[in-house]
Amino acid sequence: MFDDEEGMKIAYEEALKGYEEGGIPIGSCLVHEDGTVLGRGHNMRIQKGSPTLHGEISCLENCGRLKAEVYAKCTLYTTLSPCSMCSGSALLFKIPRLVMGENVNFQGAEDWLQKNGVEVINLKNEKCEKLMAKFIEERPGDWYEDIGESEK
Amino acid sequence: MFDDEEGMKIAYEEALKGYEEGGIPIGSCLVHEDGTVLGRGHNMRIQKGSPTLHGEISCLENCGRLKAEVYAKCTLYTTLSPCSMCSGSALLFKIPRLVMGENVNFQGAEDWLQKNGVEVINLKNEKCEKLMAKFIEERPGDWYEDIGESEK
Repeated sequence: MFDDEEGMKIAYEEALKGYEEGGIPIGSCLVHEDGTVLGRGHNMRIQKGSPTLHGEISCLENCGRLKAEVYAKCTLYTTLSPCSMCSGSALLFKIPRLVMGENVNFQGAEDWLQKNGVEVINLKNEKCEKLMAKFIEERPGDWYEDIGESEK
Repeated sequence: MFDDEEGMKIAYEEALKGYEEGGIPIGSCLVHEDGTVLGRGHNMRIQKGSPTLHGEISCLENCGRLKAEVYAKCTLYTTLSPCSMCSGSALLFKIPRLVMGENVNFQGAEDWLQKNGVEVINLKNEKCEKLMAKFIEERPGDWYEDIGESEK
């Protein structure tokens, strides 16, 4: 069986890539239950001037068009608790399982996912938490824009 | 004051453009309360092989990076009831008002939007409804894939 720590390692690699590109360090990957990594991606707000390419959306976009039958056997990994848009994308495609790195720096729509039957797992990953905290401290303006908030 | 019928006219133009390109005919635009159309777009699943560029996401993407203060004064128009991902994007950016063309062909996460304080208006627009119904009849496989369902 595919190990959740493996999935999070890939998501973290993506987050780190984003950070090194000068972007918002949130990464994601979609993994089939047979262990195939169907796609991976990271937040592209800064790199592409994109408001919608959050880590998870970027990953799902990179996966390309998939059938419902495929999503139904997948786990979506993300370094940070998924916002309402990204949670909504998991529900849209009926992805049954979501594994996050942490929800200390931001708490998204986890309740909504669980209420709709998605299995939600928080790995409380220290590396994910530290990288995100560092970014928020360095670039609060970009971060708050990404989650539709005014800079505090 | 900007007329909702005007906003829907633009969204419908986008949907029709999508249909003429061989795509899924769902269109959207984001309009500021001062009447400025900040962006418009349509579903790009077929044209770009994109699973995430639904009409509303495509529109928000075309708007580029906006501040929370701007979204807070906008209405999001869409020809069809917004799915959970697109509803989630409205919540993420705290867009206070959503106007849809119809919800006969598909009913998205309207309840969730309303529960979270978004003003949701259904114009019950016959043109939107007919165009979408025509597409679903012609290309059910592409349509069900777009909403994460198996073909019926």
